[in-house]
Parts: sequence; C-alpha cells; structure tokens
Amino acid sequence: MTRPIAIRRLNAADQDFARHLDHLLSWESVSDEGVNQRVLEIIDAVRSRGDAALVEYTQRFDGLEVASMADLILPRERLELALTRITPAQRAALETAAERVRSYHEKQKQDSWSYTEADGTVLGQQVTPLDRAGLYVPGGKASYPSSVLMNAIPAKVAGVPEVVMVVPTPRGEINELVLAAACIAGVDRVFTIGGAQAVAALAYGTESVPPVDKIVGPGNIYVATAKRHVFGKVGIDMIAGPSEILVVCDGQTDPDWIAMDLFSQAEHDEDAQSILLSPDAAFLDRVAASIAKLLPTMERAEIIRASLDARGALIQVADMAQAIEVANRIAPEHLELSVENPEQYLPLIRHAGAIFMGRYTAEALGDYCAGPNHVLPTSGTARFSSPLGVYDFQKRSSIIHCSAAGASELGKSASVLARGESLTAHARSAEYRIKP
Amino acid sequence: MTRPIAIRRLNAADQDFARHLDHLLSWESVSDEGVNQRVLEIIDAVRSRGDAALVEYTQRFDGLEVASMADLILPRERLELALTRITPAQRAALETAAERVRSYHEKQKQDSWSYTEADGTVLGQQVTPLDRAGLYVPGGKASYPSSVLMNAIPAKVAGVPEVVMVVPTPRGEINELVLAAACIAGVDRVFTIGGAQAVAALAYGTESVPPVDKIVGPGNIYVATAKRHVFGKVGIDMIAGPSEILVVCDGQTDPDWIAMDLFSQAEHDEDAQSILLSPDAAFLDRVAASIAKLLPTMERAEIIRASLDARGALIQVADMAQAIEVANRIAPEHLELSVENPEQYLPLIRHAGAIFMGRYTAEALGDYCAGPNHVLPTSGTARFSSPLGVYDFQKRSSIIHCSAAGASELGKSASVLARGESLTAHARSAEYRIKP
Repeated sequence: MTRPIAIRRLNAADQDFARHLDHLLSWESVSDEGVNQRVLEIIDAVRSRGDAALVEYTQRFDGLEVASMADLILPRERLELALTRITPAQRAALETAAERVRSYHEKQKQDSWSYTEADGTVLGQQVTPLDRAGLYVPGGKASYPSSVLMNAIPAKVAGVPEVVMVVPTPRGEINELVLAAACIAGVDRVFTIGGAQAVAALAYGTESVPPVDKIVGPGNIYVATAKRHVFGKVGIDMIAGPSEILVVCDGQTDPDWIAMDLFSQAEHDEDAQSILLSPDAAFLDRVAASIAKLLPTMERAEIIRASLDARGALIQVADMAQAIEVANRIAPEHLELSVENPEQYLPLIRHAGAIFMGRYTAEALGDYCAGPNHVLPTSGTARFSSPLGVYDFQKRSSIIHCSAAGASELGKSASVLARGESLTAHARSAEYRIKP
Repeated sequence: MTRPIAIRRLNAADQDFARHLDHLLSWESVSDEGVNQRVLEIIDAVRSRGDAALVEYTQRFDGLEVASMADLILPRERLELALTRITPAQRAALETAAERVRSYHEKQKQDSWSYTEADGTVLGQQVTPLDRAGLYVPGGKASYPSSVLMNAIPAKVAGVPEVVMVVPTPRGEINELVLAAACIAGVDRVFTIGGAQAVAALAYGTESVPPVDKIVGPGNIYVATAKRHVFGKVGIDMIAGPSEILVVCDGQTDPDWIAMDLFSQAEHDEDAQSILLSPDAAFLDRVAASIAKLLPTMERAEIIRASLDARGALIQVADMAQAIEVANRIAPEHLELSVENPEQYLPLIRHAGAIFMGRYTAEALGDYCAGPNHVLPTSGTARFSSPLGVYDFQKRSSIIHCSAAGASELGKSASVLARGESLTAHARSAEYRIKP
C-alpha cells in the first residue's frame, strides 16, 4: 500500500495528444477461439438434451450437487423469504431505488400512433411488449442487486408478462440481496443456472426453462460469447466492455470528491477507466494529491491502483470548449460535468451514455437510485447506442390500411417502381388495386 | 413451364399441425467457416492497408480496372446526372415515394424530455442523431432503388449530417435508378465498393472512406458476415433472413389478387416464403386454381414455383381466432389481413413486422410508396424487433442533475446499496454529498 500511485498526466495542447488519447482509449475484447468452441458445444448440448445438460453443466461448473432440474428452480416464495433475510435498511433502500427507477422509466413508454390521410388511408405503428424476457445475473462477487432492478423494471414497465431470471449459485452461494431485488422488481421465475448453458436455455428453451424473446444482463466471457451466438434467434442487449467515467471539472469542486468519483469507477475492475479533464492545472495537482491521500484508505485499493495505473488519466485542456470536444471524441459511458451551470454545455454533448450534471451529481447516485438506468453503452458505443430502457422491451409493427382510392393512387407509383426493379408480381399485385 | 405447381395444404385441426408448421418455418442461416475466414482476412487487410486493399479487392471481386481510389468515388454531380437518365415517370414515382416515406418517418422522430422533481432534481433523456451513417446497397440484380429510399430517408429525418453509401458496380454496371434514388434521398457521398471490404471500410475508415457509426442495408453472405464481425465497433441493423408474407383471408377477396400477393413475395428468391390462412376451404381451392392459372404468365415463374414448392403453404383454420393465433406463432415479416373490418383484429396481433389491412392494401404498396419502411424483421424476429426507423439513427443520453437536497437524500439509499455490494468507493462518493 506504500507504493506511490502514478496516474498519467496528459495535455491536450501537446502535439501527439490525439495519438496518446487513442492509445489510452483503445480496447478490444479478446475473442478466444477456445472459449468460442466450448460455448458452441454447450449451446448444442442444451439444444439437444435440455434439462439433462443443464443439470450436468451446473454440477460441473458450479460445483453443485443437484439431483434434477427441480433443484435449480426457485419458487416465488423463496424470493419473498429473501426480503426477510436482508436488513430493514437494505429493504427500504431497494424499495426506494425500485420506486424511483420505475417512475423514471414510466416516462419512456412508447405508445401506438396512427394518422388518416385525406383519401381515408390510415398509417401508423402499433407498439407492443415482448412476450417474455430473460435476465442474466452473474453469481459470486459480481452479483449486483442494483443490476436486477435496472434490468427487470424496464421490462415490467414495458408490459412484458413474464420476466425469467437466471443466476448461478456457485458452491450453493445464494445472494439474498439479489433475490430480494428480484422480488421487488417483479421477476416472475428464477432458475439457479449460469454461464453459456443458461443463455442457451433462455434462447432455445428446455423442458423446464421457457424460451424468451430477448436476453439482457451482464456476464463473463462465456456469457458474452453465448449471447453473440444466440443473437438473431433472440434479441440481446449490448455486449458491455469495461466501465468508464469521464469527469469534466472547472476546478471548483472539492478535489476529494473528484478523487472518490474516479475511484468509484476504478474499483469495478482493473480494466475500468477513469479520466479527469480540467482547464485548471493546479486543480489536477490537487486531485492527484487527493488520490494519493485517499487511496490507502480504500477497501479495494489494489484494484483501484491497477485501474488508474493502466487506464486512468488527468488531462489538462485549454478551456471548457476543448473539454467538450474531447468528451465527444471519447463518447464516455458516464460523463460527469462537475462545473458551474452545467446546463450551458448540455446542447454541445453529442455522445454520452449518461450525463451527471453539477457538483452534487455523483455517478454513484445514478448507479443505484436516481432513476435512470445504469446499463449504459461502453467503449465509445454511445456514438450509436442508448441506455437500456423500456424501448428495449417494446417493438413496433407498421400499420398500413389503404382506402380503395388510396390504393389506386399508390398502385400507380408502385407499379412503375416495381417494373424498374423487374419485380413484375409486385407490379401486377399493385395494378389489381388500380381503379379502371 | 408445364409442370403443375404443387403448393402444400395444411389444416390447423390436424393433430401434427404444430410440428408441420414448425418444420415449414424452420430456417437457420448457414454459417460457413470458409466464408468466415475470408471475411476476417478482408477486414484485417482493409484495417491495415486501407484504400490500397479496397482497390485490390474491387479489381479482383468486381472485375473492375481501377487505377486508384479516386476511380471508386462518385461525386454528387454523378447522382444528379442519374436523375436525367431515368424516365420522367420513374423520376416522378421515386419522388412521390420519397415524399411519402419522409412524411411518415417524420412522425417517428423522438424528442429529448426531462422533468423536475420537488427538490429541484432534474431527470430526463437527451436525444441526438448519429454523426454518420453507412448504407450498403447490393450491386447487380438485387440492387433496389426502393431500398435506398427506405434506408437513407430515416437517417436524414433523424438529422444524421452525413450518409455514406457504398454500392458495388460489378464489371462497371451502374444502376441509374439506384443513383437517382440516392440523389433524391439526400445521400451525401457514394463509393462504388461492395462486399466485406466495403463493410470493413465503413466500420474502420480508410484514407478516403470516413468511418461511420452504424451500417444498415441488405447484402449477401459476405456482407452479412462482415456486419456481424464489426458489430460493437459500429452499430448494425438486423441480419435479414429470406422475405416472407402471411396472408389471412376471410374468403371474400378475389383469389387472383391473393395469388398475386403470394407471388410478389415468392418472386424475391427460392427461399422466400408465402403462406395463406383461411377458414374457407373452398376459397383455398380457388386460390390454388388462380396460382396454377397465373403462374405460367409470370416473368419469374421458375423462382416463384421453387419458392412455393419448398416453403409455401395454404392452411385451413377453424376460424379467424385460430388464424390470429397462428399468425402470432409465425410472427411474420409481412401480415396481410385481407378481411372485412380488419381493425377488429389489430389489438390481437402481438407480433408482425408490418400489418397490411383490408383487401386493397397489397404488400407491394408498402414495399414502395405507402410510407412505412420496407426493412422489416424476418424469420420470426418480429417477436423482439421493429421496422427500420428514425429511432435507429437516434440515440439517447440519460440526464441527471441532482439538487443539493436531492443528492443528500439519494446519497443515503445509494450508500446502503453500495455497501451491500461491497463497493465502498461508490458509497463514499455518495456519502460526500449527504448534508451533515
């Protein structure tokens, strides 16, 4: 714990800053052919042998003595029991968080819409929920009750009738907080299975596990690889990379607060990334001093140190305009604008998973209970993707209802275009509807 | 052309109907390890050698004599020239279609939203367009101008500043209708490249091709495989399977119309699927007779015959309730409700890419110019996905702006939950914001 922490310092004015930044951000998930082959075998086994394969893999990988699939099903009463096994303060905090997450996500619900044209033709979209969603929850130390709330509640708000959760219980370890969160979030069924076998079961169904339409939730490399393989058969959420935060500070926030905000990202794992941008060089020094001072007091000091060493940075920028430019280049998962009047910068932010505005909005508040989802696009994918939301559990069907007059008029254009594409059955089908 | 057409007849009352239906619908895209390896090599080559690799692959695969990348760029003036090379009727039809597609998609645009809580905390989402979108357009006979409109217009309506199109021109063949459609849709830049190399160029960028944030548009197995590989680096649309239509008819529509509607799907390719459901057995006989009568008159008779033989079916159901049940089981890309008062069935439809309502709404009208998108989820993926839309070119950033009072209150819950997850930096970051 006595080794000094050496977090890298960059200056956006340096000639090779762009190259340094690219290098700092570079991240490609390793694709391991061995993992890939094992995952394919597991998927095949679950597809062909169903429950029997699930029981075998669970014995082998989770070290569980299970006689049959019945031992891998948690009834709703077990979830309710978990509520009594956590502390009253934990239960209250989970319920507060769930209520806030639910009320925020209610605002995301999308409705069907349609309009009628002058000739009576009706066009629109009908919005419906998925029939069934699957939620993967990791076992062991990465098992987070907050993730259960964040994944299950949007599905329930969307109106998904059945949410099925899978969570491995290695060596029988059950996380009561996870089960309590599942109970509060309204999860309908729980199976204590994990890994690629759980993903395969959710995608294809077995005698006991019902097939779902979409699988969400984080997992290790086996889970991520399995999700990639079943994509198309079912929907999946994004494959998440390591978590990251970009803090932009004008130099007026308590440096201890900023140091702890950087730690809160770095403590996730060694690959997590924490970056601070400020136009105030002296402030960067103060934050570096806070980091050195606070690090030895942290429970996860070694993880934090490794993460800051490998992927952290304190970056000096010329001004706030340059800070925003660099932020858009990074397209961070979490962007903290720890500045005076952050609203003025909001219209300039083009890419970010979530924007934490002002000195009081620690990312940790958003991780648990502010209301917005903590499942966010990582590794620059905020350039093209969005936080997990109710919209991920709804889908749309186009509605087209042509009047006789509308069909006659549209038929003329359709006929010309279809013949231009040499699709004459299309043309003739349209032409039948043209009034003579 | 004289061989009689034998389209399969099924009855939903039969004991083994469910099994027959499953078999009829079964479709898995072949994943070919040889294709996979070649695609990986192509992606690597484009990433490491950029334009030079594009020029080489285009010479080799498209049989084009190109000296340099400059020969593979079409300036905007070339698109404008195409407008003068198509017929006035074609230009008018393209413009009508574009205008209707644009006006329908304007209704899909999503806006930023936020709300303020009692203690002054602001929560919401900021909605922004992608910076740059890539549109893949196949060359040769599957080169459809209507697809250019359907893919490019939603991006432009979303506010994407730059839409980059790639289209191969094998042996120099340029489709003027495709270029004209690109001009009308507002495509910003066009490169005459195709295959996995074009996908790699759009994903990673080269000296000439700018990297995009999302790639949409159909393509062959090389294109689809490349899209799967670059997914994560950029966004992609769904990997499309063969096109399908499910027609539900009460027996009162002209059987020739229904036969032609089935043909319009079958003519796409041998793997396309056309299915008719009706409670009226005599009507199924009349449609079978229309099929036999009309097939010999079709330009693409052999493709239609092969498709109907392999994957088509006329299915008798007990009543409309059963028809809707089977339709939900199939979750078709295109669902035609050729019945009296189709509105009554709409709330019962849970899964369909697009719903064509009433006897006048031929699918072909929707394919070209009704307004809704013709890029739709295939092979049952309507269970969890939606038509291509403006929402595919927009993304969201969560907004959280806690007041001092809000942060203090939220900090208490966050602290309890973070400590429950052993994430003490999270807890302490939240605790700093609790008022003493």
